[in-house]
Amino acid sequence: MNPTLTNAWSRLAEHANSLTHTHLRHLFAIDSKRAQHFCAEACGILLDYSKNRINDDSLRHLFDLADACDLRTHILAMFEGEAINTTENRAVLHTALRAQGEAHVQVGGHDVIPDIRAVRARTHTFAKAVREGRWLGHTGQVIRDVVNIGIGGSDLGPLMVCEALRPYADGPRVHFVSNVDNLHLLQTLKGLDPASTLFIVASKTFTTVETLTNARSARHWLVEALGSEAAVAKHFVAISTNREKVTEFGIDADNMFGFWDWVGGRYSLWSAIGLPIEIAIGPERFDELLAGAAAMDLHFRTAPLKENLPVILALLGIWNINFLGFTSQVIAPYNQTLYRLPAYLQQLDMESNGKHVRVEGETVSYGTGPVIWGEPGINGQHAYFQLLHQGSRIIPVDFILALSQPGQTDPHRRTLIASCLAQSSALMSGRTAAEVRAEMQARGVAAAQIETLLPHRVFDGNRPSNTLLLKDLSPRSLGALIALYEHKVFVQGSIWGINSFDQWGVELGKQLAVGLEKRLEGAETPAYDGSTEMLLAYVARQKTKTR
Amino acid sequence: MNPTLTNAWSRLAEHANSLTHTHLRHLFAIDSKRAQHFCAEACGILLDYSKNRINDDSLRHLFDLADACDLRTHILAMFEGEAINTTENRAVLHTALRAQGEAHVQVGGHDVIPDIRAVRARTHTFAKAVREGRWLGHTGQVIRDVVNIGIGGSDLGPLMVCEALRPYADGPRVHFVSNVDNLHLLQTLKGLDPASTLFIVASKTFTTVETLTNARSARHWLVEALGSEAAVAKHFVAISTNREKVTEFGIDADNMFGFWDWVGGRYSLWSAIGLPIEIAIGPERFDELLAGAAAMDLHFRTAPLKENLPVILALLGIWNINFLGFTSQVIAPYNQTLYRLPAYLQQLDMESNGKHVRVEGETVSYGTGPVIWGEPGINGQHAYFQLLHQGSRIIPVDFILALSQPGQTDPHRRTLIASCLAQSSALMSGRTAAEVRAEMQARGVAAAQIETLLPHRVFDGNRPSNTLLLKDLSPRSLGALIALYEHKVFVQGSIWGINSFDQWGVELGKQLAVGLEKRLEGAETPAYDGSTEMLLAYVARQKTKTR
Repeated sequence: MNPTLTNAWSRLAEHANSLTHTHLRHLFAIDSKRAQHFCAEACGILLDYSKNRINDDSLRHLFDLADACDLRTHILAMFEGEAINTTENRAVLHTALRAQGEAHVQVGGHDVIPDIRAVRARTHTFAKAVREGRWLGHTGQVIRDVVNIGIGGSDLGPLMVCEALRPYADGPRVHFVSNVDNLHLLQTLKGLDPASTLFIVASKTFTTVETLTNARSARHWLVEALGSEAAVAKHFVAISTNREKVTEFGIDADNMFGFWDWVGGRYSLWSAIGLPIEIAIGPERFDELLAGAAAMDLHFRTAPLKENLPVILALLGIWNINFLGFTSQVIAPYNQTLYRLPAYLQQLDMESNGKHVRVEGETVSYGTGPVIWGEPGINGQHAYFQLLHQGSRIIPVDFILALSQPGQTDPHRRTLIASCLAQSSALMSGRTAAEVRAEMQARGVAAAQIETLLPHRVFDGNRPSNTLLLKDLSPRSLGALIALYEHKVFVQGSIWGINSFDQWGVELGKQLAVGLEKRLEGAETPAYDGSTEMLLAYVARQKTKTR
Repeated sequence: MNPTLTNAWSRLAEHANSLTHTHLRHLFAIDSKRAQHFCAEACGILLDYSKNRINDDSLRHLFDLADACDLRTHILAMFEGEAINTTENRAVLHTALRAQGEAHVQVGGHDVIPDIRAVRARTHTFAKAVREGRWLGHTGQVIRDVVNIGIGGSDLGPLMVCEALRPYADGPRVHFVSNVDNLHLLQTLKGLDPASTLFIVASKTFTTVETLTNARSARHWLVEALGSEAAVAKHFVAISTNREKVTEFGIDADNMFGFWDWVGGRYSLWSAIGLPIEIAIGPERFDELLAGAAAMDLHFRTAPLKENLPVILALLGIWNINFLGFTSQVIAPYNQTLYRLPAYLQQLDMESNGKHVRVEGETVSYGTGPVIWGEPGINGQHAYFQLLHQGSRIIPVDFILALSQPGQTDPHRRTLIASCLAQSSALMSGRTAAEVRAEMQARGVAAAQIETLLPHRVFDGNRPSNTLLLKDLSPRSLGALIALYEHKVFVQGSIWGINSFDQWGVELGKQLAVGLEKRLEGAETPAYDGSTEMLLAYVARQKTKTR
């Protein structure tokens, strides 16, 4: 169903016009219970969405839109393992990876749950052995450092979670190398002892050029230092499905942990790709992360749409993008350990919904996935927030704040909370010319100066935001938070009618790079466009000069 | 001059319409010298801007716009120390901080150059003493770790540069703490020895709440460990102008390094705020960073507009934002050590031009500063690039690649270069349905499957980008790169008629936070909006539960 053909869409468009001149301040003034009304809670997360430009009618139409687009059917299809990734003819089952208790999920008549649990038992065992000092390196040393080599989904998810849960990290230190620029690897290995370092090479196909290039250099570093090819088997494990390439590399097939074609890269931290997390915080806490996500899955699957956090978040996004024209979205986490959450959600959202062709192949006539960006909110206040408050366009913000975390103390915590709440309040209410004038008069500022500065000190306000308060930043609540955004992205994709689970847009550049690399090696290739040829010539000139 | 009232603006608007149906592929096809034509080089940086939706007319009108807005006068006014930051009645002289050789810059009849050099001589001496092990801690130990405590401009600039130049780092390790969330400080101090740790507290007023809260906790950590208040003088220095507060904190006034009201926070890395950089790479290399920026200053000030890198970059931005409606801008550095450049430029640009009121107080009728965001390009290829290639809106990209760096080796380097060039080529040219069909037919894919997949594998192309190639990533070329973007931001601000050097938009949230923090401490305050009150009540409930 093309969403623009629904009655709900037309009603939303009309309704948006009717709200154009309504300020959020006014909406709060006429309804003292607005915040209690536009608020929902599940799995330890409170979502306050009252600072959006909505009223009861907006929500009603949005829920109608969800119904008209058969959202419930889409949700069921995903959970039940239907091949909803139609362009690749695959099921989408990151939810099965975290299914709790007795569960059965069929893919082509085969229950995948036992497979999932078999691999998890192996990663648990391996992680424990490393953590407890029972896994020994080539020279008999215990592992003190783990280096994950992967890129995209094989990097961002485990990296973000390891950082977010650092207060729980009690295993070996875990590092991440993703960029093919070898300075990334070089600087990571600086100071590490090869004898006590373990590499995890994460690549589904074991052919990802960045990852394999880094893995080969890491292998070289190790073998040089330990003096034996045999050391590779004790210092490298793989997360992959390509047994042949893995063993060819020198990794023992027993130390290869697999996953399946129904796990997309950006949804894979729940699979064996989560091994660095298991090593950092332990298998038990990794299981709590899964349990937190599973709790959100259950909520998403069963809660009425009107209380359903992922659905609400998704519909507000559609409202902002398609009816108010706000096409960019800030993610502002306040807790420092969540500093990689924006980059993680950037991939999750933009790779999923950064498409303009519907499942059936039709080009959309409406906006799809937004630009997702951000940096920790408190730092943002001293940087990009200027534009959020006084820029020439409106950018909605998701404020994310966990209210407690091991090691967090006052007065730090108090300032953190006060800052977060202050920003959303300021964006919403703004500050009128009359208020600025009164304040400056009270301070005794000269009348002429007041009039000069006045326009610069006014804040229009009426700038929308959500606030997500987490009771704590535990493995469980983090799992729920990630699943919340996963499902938000899925709901939006379902309504926009796009396949959120393929990524054809990464293909062309990859293909061109192969040829260009050959050209840089000295091979002849067909001519590229004039710009690329000019740049190649410049590169060649620099090379000559360096020599 | 309101830019929309110029003839150039009207001509640009008409001209943009005439280009609507012209594909970049076509523009390359009709002009084999296009790349050579739309290309400029200065200070070791090649700017290829041929992959923008422009032709000779576009550029002519854009340069006319610059002239009509008196750009030359604006540039001169900045360099000569006029009070161009009108709302704060201040000169803007980050360029004076890096002036080379004999130079004189008057502010209110006073030459600021001797002041600048006097402070620099002191930071140089101090940095050398620390680097050479002559500065000793309270217990007589040399300094092994330096922790910079600052936020916003007192953090992002030095942090970005220290990371970018890590291959040159041969001094003590330098760390950065910015977030008031004490987990940032806690995790940074973990494993550091108080006896060999030096803190730099960077806050112009020495009242920034985040910085002072962190500084007090760091002080507590140090005094507890070393057992004496007297240790503070040996382990804390300040970059500030508030002598009273600094000495009150226990810092020796001799170890306070000052700067001036004509140095904005986001332009301050060239001042004493750069002390962590000096300690990390040494004063000589810091001087090279300054010299690189100075070379770009000279280029900016003297090169004809048509060869002027900052001017070209700025005008292309205005073209994209105001005439093509592309309001978001990706910064995609390929070198790993530039990974904080996007966050740095985000502050530089968005805090400078995220405003919608002209200098004289009039509200603008046109778009101003874009959203600036990004992550290292090679990682982006496995993440957000999907949306750049196939999303429902166009987002211009600045590809940034330094062609050599100490420690960089093949094949890593080759893959890095090939990837960067491939992406801009793919965004520009795209891939037509005919090309996709031919490719799939050649692979023997069944006709039905070709037709199903076809729309998903097409790339429209025609997506603009700039490519900036740096010969190397040395202190000198990095200095030039940063100055290039500083001046780009200035040119845009000059044309839009906004003051790029104030930041009134950060005020309101800061003020509200003060009251909210008191409320969290238990004080009575006037009631906030309904949402804030609801959130406060939720926070209070969690606190009760925890106890």
